[in-house]
Amino acid sequence: MSASRTNVNVAIVGTGNIGGELLNQIKGFNENASTNGTTSFNVVAISSMEGHYVSKDYQPINLSEWKNLTSQNQGAYSLDALVDFLAKSPLPAILVDNTASEAIAQSYPKFLSKKINIATPNKKAFSASNDVYQNIIKASKESGALLMHEASVGAGLPIISTLKELIATGDEIIKIEGIFSGTLSYIFNVWSPNGKKGTASFSDIVKIAKQNGYTEPDPRDDLNGMDVARKVTILSRIAGVHVESASSFPVKSLIPEPLKSAVNAEEFLAGLPNFDSEFASMREEAEKEGKVVRFVGEADVANKTTLVKLEKYDASHPFANLQSSDNIISFTTKRYHTRPLVVIGAGAGAAVTAAGVLGDMIKIMSQVRASDAPSA
Amino acid sequence: MSASRTNVNVAIVGTGNIGGELLNQIKGFNENASTNGTTSFNVVAISSMEGHYVSKDYQPINLSEWKNLTSQNQGAYSLDALVDFLAKSPLPAILVDNTASEAIAQSYPKFLSKKINIATPNKKAFSASNDVYQNIIKASKESGALLMHEASVGAGLPIISTLKELIATGDEIIKIEGIFSGTLSYIFNVWSPNGKKGTASFSDIVKIAKQNGYTEPDPRDDLNGMDVARKVTILSRIAGVHVESASSFPVKSLIPEPLKSAVNAEEFLAGLPNFDSEFASMREEAEKEGKVVRFVGEADVANKTTLVKLEKYDASHPFANLQSSDNIISFTTKRYHTRPLVVIGAGAGAAVTAAGVLGDMIKIMSQVRASDAPSA
Ligand SMILES: NC(=O)c1ccc[n+]([C@@H]2O[C@H](COP(=O)([O-])OP(=O)(O)OC[C@H]3O[C@@H](n4cnc5c(N)ncnc54)[C@H](OP(=O)(O)O)[C@@H]3O)[C@@H](O)[C@H]2O)c1
Ligand SMILES: NC(=O)c1ccc[n+]([C@@H]2O[C@H](COP(=O)([O-])OP(=O)(O)OC[C@H]3O[C@@H](n4cnc5c(N)ncnc54)[C@H](OP(=O)(O)O)[C@@H]3O)[C@@H](O)[C@H]2O)c1
Repeated sequence: MSASRTNVNVAIVGTGNIGGELLNQIKGFNENASTNGTTSFNVVAISSMEGHYVSKDYQPINLSEWKNLTSQNQGAYSLDALVDFLAKSPLPAILVDNTASEAIAQSYPKFLSKKINIATPNKKAFSASNDVYQNIIKASKESGALLMHEASVGAGLPIISTLKELIATGDEIIKIEGIFSGTLSYIFNVWSPNGKKGTASFSDIVKIAKQNGYTEPDPRDDLNGMDVARKVTILSRIAGVHVESASSFPVKSLIPEPLKSAVNAEEFLAGLPNFDSEFASMREEAEKEGKVVRFVGEADVANKTTLVKLEKYDASHPFANLQSSDNIISFTTKRYHTRPLVVIGAGAGAAVTAAGVLGDMIKIMSQVRASDAPSA
Repeated sequence: MSASRTNVNVAIVGTGNIGGELLNQIKGFNENASTNGTTSFNVVAISSMEGHYVSKDYQPINLSEWKNLTSQNQGAYSLDALVDFLAKSPLPAILVDNTASEAIAQSYPKFLSKKINIATPNKKAFSASNDVYQNIIKASKESGALLMHEASVGAGLPIISTLKELIATGDEIIKIEGIFSGTLSYIFNVWSPNGKKGTASFSDIVKIAKQNGYTEPDPRDDLNGMDVARKVTILSRIAGVHVESASSFPVKSLIPEPLKSAVNAEEFLAGLPNFDSEFASMREEAEKEGKVVRFVGEADVANKTTLVKLEKYDASHPFANLQSSDNIISFTTKRYHTRPLVVIGAGAGAAVTAAGVLGDMIKIMSQVRASDAPSA
């Protein structure tokens, strides 16, 4: 059986935090494969906004050299050219999208319909409007090309694979709840600590989080709740709930109304202390009940509703005991009914996110054969 | 691509708690597959100590009828006959071993060398002597037949798949620790509760656990720690630690020395109260330090040691906050270094265990093609 396993051609789009680390990890994987005599990934194209390199005749790119090679050609490789290139691949092919680009997400059907598999940490496709999403799923089903995006929720944690396996084995999903944003996990774990009185002001914690590089350049891009909304959209849809888009359901925003129009991050942070007492009163209310405040996404599958909310939790609740910037995701199902199946751990960071993408690539590799090459 | 996917022939050995439930779940899976036009599992042989049925010409057995059919032939089908039968399978084949039999585990190489894949919740093969284990792994590598046993640790929880993916993506495992026995999880969570003083006696809790069916018929089969030792053996070996056997490293036994020779469970339970004060003093010592007592298995991969122990944990430690009979497994790795990747949930029970086995069967199905049939 192993004899019929095959190497796979890979195109990497996006070479930032994740893409750069992924190229390192692929190099390590290939070195092991060569030692063990197993199959490996031939990276045949690398592209970012800065530059690109596409190999001749699908020759594997030397992964110690990729920075030099991509610097020879300015700008990103055109998506249509990339579809054409991979569509003629003599080996099974994977597009790895390490961007946050909406345009690339919208182009997935073009790749999938040519039997090009996709692995990506990019949330955009799966949290887009329902039309865009359904088109992508349909293209994958019709061609049989695989579409994997474990790292789009919880980075390298086994979240999407676990959810899909629960469903495939006939379990019924009742509810999925979690703390899905590393940034907001950190902010609330510090601001509303478990077992002691919270003292730091909300604005100070946001400032410190920004200084430590835990937030987006403009912290409002975390505080608006949309990253969490995208992640619950993704999980809700996999669990069979119709979600029109990531903005079609109630999403709690932590940005005080008057600060929505602040022209930049500095102006926003300068104004935020004016709202500290409002936040503090919420925390006091929770503390009076022996509770903490957490920012939670919820897919209530039984009732077919999706929600992003601020909520109070008992000191003994797993959400109250989270550490640092960890994610926690809890699946309540027909089989895990009295007590949920729970996964906890870092849900962001280059190494774990790239590992989530590489894990998907390995799964694709294990499922394809030579006859699955786009050109076959 | 989907066109080349194929149905898979399946032989079920063992139709107890897990095997019976698995047959139900396979029936449900096949009904969905038929609705969706996807591939399904043809169960072609069913065998237990009570009776067996092997279909003619690999015709799928009607899964509403299996009890009647197997009652026609007394006793288990011979293993050698089953190897021969599956070795001629015109479709890819899976042996599903739902027994706790050591003999069947020892016969895995015979199946694997004939390109028969294996899915099993049976710990025996993977926690046997190193020779037996290495033979099995070697047979799988040589023929390419897949060997999956997710449910042998943590039932349906994603433990083995997570560990294997961490390793495959180049992470380095530092330590795996966990509460691996549902029975001992329950006993210690009740006996040494978090946040309040423990009052119940150890012997009373063991008695209640037995009455509720949470223990083996003789509770000593839980209290000897060997089930936990087998599970850490399995994980240690996957993580690359040499373990000679499940009894080649220190394993804490909770059976007081004088009660090892008790002739049966009743005599053992009658004698256990004599040791309550010994247990209680350990609990008091922990309580003085604000801690609880838990029964933990540990694979210290960095130091290449394996251990099963009683240990005290701070009230804020995840092991202290476990509920009921839940399992918890914690992976500390190079990438999950400051805070581990943690999975929590029910680690026993027919539905979740069978789902773990079915999940493995689905993974095997997704990785095989017609050309992987033993007869091909
Ligand atoms: N960072 C995390 O911890 C984490 C966790 C989970 C998921 N993710 C997801 O992973 C993805 C990548 O994140 P990141 O942190 O690596 O971002 P990043 O550092 O900003 O990298 C993005 C990369 O995409 C390239 N790019 C953007 N648009 C492109 C286009 N149209 N064509 C070609 N290349 C394009 C950029 O090129 P230039 O550098 O040349 O501009 C850059 O190389 C995002 O979708 C993110 O949401 C990240
Ligand atoms: N129960 C759980 O929650 C759980 C969780 C994780 C893993 N597991 C593992 O799953 C396996 C099955 O557990 P279970 O609870 O289903 O046990 P069970 O109810 O005792 O069932 C065992 C089955 O195996 C059959 N059997 C035993 N020896 C056999 C042989 N040599 N040939 C053919 N059939 C044989 C028995 O036949 P008869 O009934 O005719 O005697 C019975 O059908 C065990 O390895 C266990 O450790 C169980």
